[in-house]
Amino acid sequence: MNSSMIRYLLGSVLKIEGALLFLPCLVSLCYQEKVGFFYVSVAVFCLLLGFVMTLKKPKDTVFYLKEGCVTTALSWIFMSFFGALPFWLSGEIPSLTDALFETVSGFTTTGASILTDVEALSYTALFWRSFTHWIGGMGVLVFLLAIISLSGGSHINLLRAESPGPSVGKLVPKMKHTARILYLIYLGMTLIEIVLLLVGKMSLFDALTTSFGTAGTGGFGIKADSMGGYSPYIQWVVTIFMIAFGVNFNAYYFILFHNAKKAFRMEEVRYYLGIIVAAIGILLVDTVKIYGSFSVALRHSAFQVGSIITTTGFSTVDFDLWSQTSKTVLVLLMFIGACAGSTGGGIKVSRFIILIKTILKELNSYIHPRSIKKITYDDRPIEHEVMRSTNVYFMTFVVLFTASVLVISLEDWDLTTNFTAVAATINNIGPGLELVGPSRNFSFFSPLSKYVLIFDMLAGRLELFPLLILFHPAIWKELYAHKSAVRKLKKKKAGKDRG
Amino acid sequence: MNSSMIRYLLGSVLKIEGALLFLPCLVSLCYQEKVGFFYVSVAVFCLLLGFVMTLKKPKDTVFYLKEGCVTTALSWIFMSFFGALPFWLSGEIPSLTDALFETVSGFTTTGASILTDVEALSYTALFWRSFTHWIGGMGVLVFLLAIISLSGGSHINLLRAESPGPSVGKLVPKMKHTARILYLIYLGMTLIEIVLLLVGKMSLFDALTTSFGTAGTGGFGIKADSMGGYSPYIQWVVTIFMIAFGVNFNAYYFILFHNAKKAFRMEEVRYYLGIIVAAIGILLVDTVKIYGSFSVALRHSAFQVGSIITTTGFSTVDFDLWSQTSKTVLVLLMFIGACAGSTGGGIKVSRFIILIKTILKELNSYIHPRSIKKITYDDRPIEHEVMRSTNVYFMTFVVLFTASVLVISLEDWDLTTNFTAVAATINNIGPGLELVGPSRNFSFFSPLSKYVLIFDMLAGRLELFPLLILFHPAIWKELYAHKSAVRKLKKKKAGKDRG
Repeated sequence: MNSSMIRYLLGSVLKIEGALLFLPCLVSLCYQEKVGFFYVSVAVFCLLLGFVMTLKKPKDTVFYLKEGCVTTALSWIFMSFFGALPFWLSGEIPSLTDALFETVSGFTTTGASILTDVEALSYTALFWRSFTHWIGGMGVLVFLLAIISLSGGSHINLLRAESPGPSVGKLVPKMKHTARILYLIYLGMTLIEIVLLLVGKMSLFDALTTSFGTAGTGGFGIKADSMGGYSPYIQWVVTIFMIAFGVNFNAYYFILFHNAKKAFRMEEVRYYLGIIVAAIGILLVDTVKIYGSFSVALRHSAFQVGSIITTTGFSTVDFDLWSQTSKTVLVLLMFIGACAGSTGGGIKVSRFIILIKTILKELNSYIHPRSIKKITYDDRPIEHEVMRSTNVYFMTFVVLFTASVLVISLEDWDLTTNFTAVAATINNIGPGLELVGPSRNFSFFSPLSKYVLIFDMLAGRLELFPLLILFHPAIWKELYAHKSAVRKLKKKKAGKDRG
Repeated sequence: MNSSMIRYLLGSVLKIEGALLFLPCLVSLCYQEKVGFFYVSVAVFCLLLGFVMTLKKPKDTVFYLKEGCVTTALSWIFMSFFGALPFWLSGEIPSLTDALFETVSGFTTTGASILTDVEALSYTALFWRSFTHWIGGMGVLVFLLAIISLSGGSHINLLRAESPGPSVGKLVPKMKHTARILYLIYLGMTLIEIVLLLVGKMSLFDALTTSFGTAGTGGFGIKADSMGGYSPYIQWVVTIFMIAFGVNFNAYYFILFHNAKKAFRMEEVRYYLGIIVAAIGILLVDTVKIYGSFSVALRHSAFQVGSIITTTGFSTVDFDLWSQTSKTVLVLLMFIGACAGSTGGGIKVSRFIILIKTILKELNSYIHPRSIKKITYDDRPIEHEVMRSTNVYFMTFVVLFTASVLVISLEDWDLTTNFTAVAATINNIGPGLELVGPSRNFSFFSPLSKYVLIFDMLAGRLELFPLLILFHPAIWKELYAHKSAVRKLKKKKAGKDRG
C-alpha cells in the first residue's frame, strides 16, 4: 500500500478545502457577519495541516485501485469533518454530530437537513452549506486530477473510485484533460443557471445558493418552504437545470466537441428522459385533481420528478400530501436516480438498463439454453466484468439498505419513516416521507441513527465499495505491514551503515 | 416444444387433484355437511377431464427445461382453478376472485386469507383449505415424478422447475426414487406431528389441519386467533415442527440413510438455525417487557420467528403491536425464508449465503485484483452458473416486488400495508403488517390488487422464472409453430396418400 502517496493526496485535498473556505469569508465581509472569524480560522488551519502533509513528495507515485478507494474514502471523511467545524465552532449548529450530518449531507449532495429553522442561519453559513453541494457534486478529487500529475494509470484508479456510475470512460486520452473538461462544463452550466435566475429577478445570494444546490443535485434550500415561494419562471428554470445536471456529462462533451447526434444516441440519456416523461405523466393525472389547473399541476409534477430522479431534493409543494400512487412513483424514482457520469445520485439509470437486459437474457436462456447472444449497451457488447460488478452492486446496496433500516428501527418510528429516511440518504436525495417528508427534517433521530445515515450518505455518494473497503481488515494490515517494512528497511540500513 | 407431453402431464395432475378432492368428501360424510356434493362433482369432473387429456400417450417423452417450466406453471394454474371451484360453487366464498385467491394462497403455502370470519366455514371447506397446503408444500409434480416414468434427463427438468432453491441435487441416482424418498419423509414427519398434537389433547380435526398447515409451511388457521388459543405444549410442538419443515430435506435423508454428521455439516442448515437463534434473542429483549414472563416471551418469540422465517404464517399473538425493532426483524425474516429443498418459501437461506460470499469476494477483488480464489459452498467451489443465476434471481425478485407495490399503490392504502402485503405473498408467508397484520385479512383489496397478489404468490412458489416464462412470446410462438408443423405434416401425408 502506497501510504505516503495517500498522505500526500489527503494533504492536497485539505489545501483545496482551506482555499475554498475563504469564499464564505467573503460573504461574511459583505454582510458584516462576525461568524466569518470561525471560517477564516478553520481555513488557515486546513491550509497549514495540508501544507505539512504535502511537505514530503512521495517518490513512488504509482497507484492501484485499492489506494484510490482508500484515498477517496478518507478524503471525503476529512473534508466532511473540517467542513463541519465552522458550523459547530460558531455555535450555529450546537451539536458536532448534527454539524457533521449537515456537512456530509452537503458534500454528498444529499440535502437532508437537521435544521428546524433554516432561515435563522447567518448568510455565511447558508452560503457554505449550499457551496458544499457544488464542491461535492463533481468531487474534489476530480478537481485535484485536473491540476496535479500522477504517473501511469493512477489517475483512472482515483477517478473510478469517486465518479458515479458503473464504468468510467475517458473522454480524451489524458485523464487530466478529461477532468478539466468535466469541470469546465460544470462551471459553465452553473454560470448559465445563475444568469437565468438573475433574469427572473432573484437576488444574487439566492441565485448563487440555488444554482449550487441544482448543479450538485444537492437540494439544501435557504427558505423553509424550499422553492415553493419563488415565481413559476424560476421554478421552471430550476426544473430544467436539475434534469440537465442529471444527464451523463459525456453527452455535453459530445454536443460541444463532437456531433450532437452521438449524444442523443446514448441509451442511458434516452431512457432517463423517457422515465422522466412517463413519471410526469402519471403524477399529472393525480395532481390535476389537487391543483385544479393543468399548468400548475404540470409545473409541480415536473419539478418534483426532476428533483427526485436527479436526487436533488428541492420541493415546491409538500408531496407527502399527494396520493399513495404518486408517492410510490416518487419512491421508485428515488432508487432509479440520475445518469452515470452526472452529479446525481441513486442507483443510476444505466445500472437499471443493464439489470433489465440481464433479466431478459436469463428468461431467454430458459428457452434457448445454448444461446450465446451477448447483451449490448450503446450498441456494444457489455463486458462480463461490468455485468458482474453491476449485479454485485445491486446486492450490496440491498444488504446495506436493509441493515440500515434495521438499526434505525431501534428507535420506535414508523416503517415508512425509517424506510424513506434510509432511501433518501443512501440515494443522496434529501427528503423522504412521513416524519422526514419535505416539510420536516432529520433532527429527531438519535445520534446512533444519525451516524448510520451519515454512513449511508457517504456510501451512496462513493458507490458503496470505496467506503466499505475501509472496513476490510486486509487494508489496515497492509498499511501496517508497509510501515513496519519501511521501519525494518531503515533499521537494516542503519545497521549496515554502522557495520 | 413437446406440447403433447405437456398435455399428458397436465391431465395426470388433474387426475391426482380429482382423487385428492375425495378426502374433503370424507370429512363431509363425517360431519354430514351438504357442501360435500360440490366437492364430489368437481372431483368427478377433474377425473373425467384428466382421463380425456391422458387418453393418447405421447410418443416422444423427451423434455427440456422450457417444457418443464411451462408444464409446472400451467399445472399450478389449473390446480388452483379447479381447487377454487368448490369454494365458489358452494357459495362459501361468493366471489370467484376471492375463491381463487384463497386457493392459490393454499397451494402456494402462503396462508393469506380473504375470509373475514374463518370460523363460519364448514368443516369440509376448512379441511380442503388446509389440505391444499399439504399438497402444495412438496408439490404435485414431485408426487407425479414418484409414480410415473419419463425418459432420460426429463425428470430433473420438471423437478428443477417446481422445487424451491437455487439448485436441485439428486439424493439417489434415480429421480423417481428421490421423489419417493422426499414424499416418505414428508408424510412421516406429518404423521409424527399429528400424533404429538393428539397427545396434547387436540381434537383430530384440529390436529390434521394444523399439521397440514405446518408441514406445507402454509399457515391457514381454522380459528380466528390462529394458534393463540391453544395450550403452550401445542404451541411448542407447532414451533418445533415449523422449524423442522424449513430445514433442507436432504439433511433428513442424510440422517436416515447416511450419517447424521453430514447433515449438521451442511452450511445452509447451520446458518438457518443460527439466524433463528439470533432472531429469537433480539425479539426476547423486546417481548419480555410486554409479557412480563421469560417463558411466555420465549414461547411467543420462538413461535413467531419459526412461523415467519419458514414462511408458515401462523401466529399466537398480534405481532403488529410489537415494537418497531421486532417488526423490522420479522420483515427481514420474511425475505430470508427457509432452506432450499424444504417446503418453506422466501428467498432461501442458501441464496443469502451465496450473496454474502459474492459481496465479500467483490470487496476482496478491490484489494487483490488478480486473485482467482473461488467461492466455496459446503466445501465445494460454487459453479459460475449457480452464482450467476442467483444474482439474476435477486434482481428479478426486486423488480417484480417493486412493480407489484406500484400497482397495489393505485389503491390509496399506506406504504407499510402495500409493502408488507407484497412481501407476505411473494415470499408465501401470509400475514403482513398494518391492514394485513396477523389479526386482519386481505379482503379489502380491489380485484386488480388481488390478481397481482395471486400472481406474486405463484411467482414466489415457483421461484419466478417458471411463471415469468409463460409471458415470453417465444413460448407461444413455439407452441403455435409446433401445432402448425404437425398440421402441415398431416396435410402433406394426406396429399401423398391421395397422390
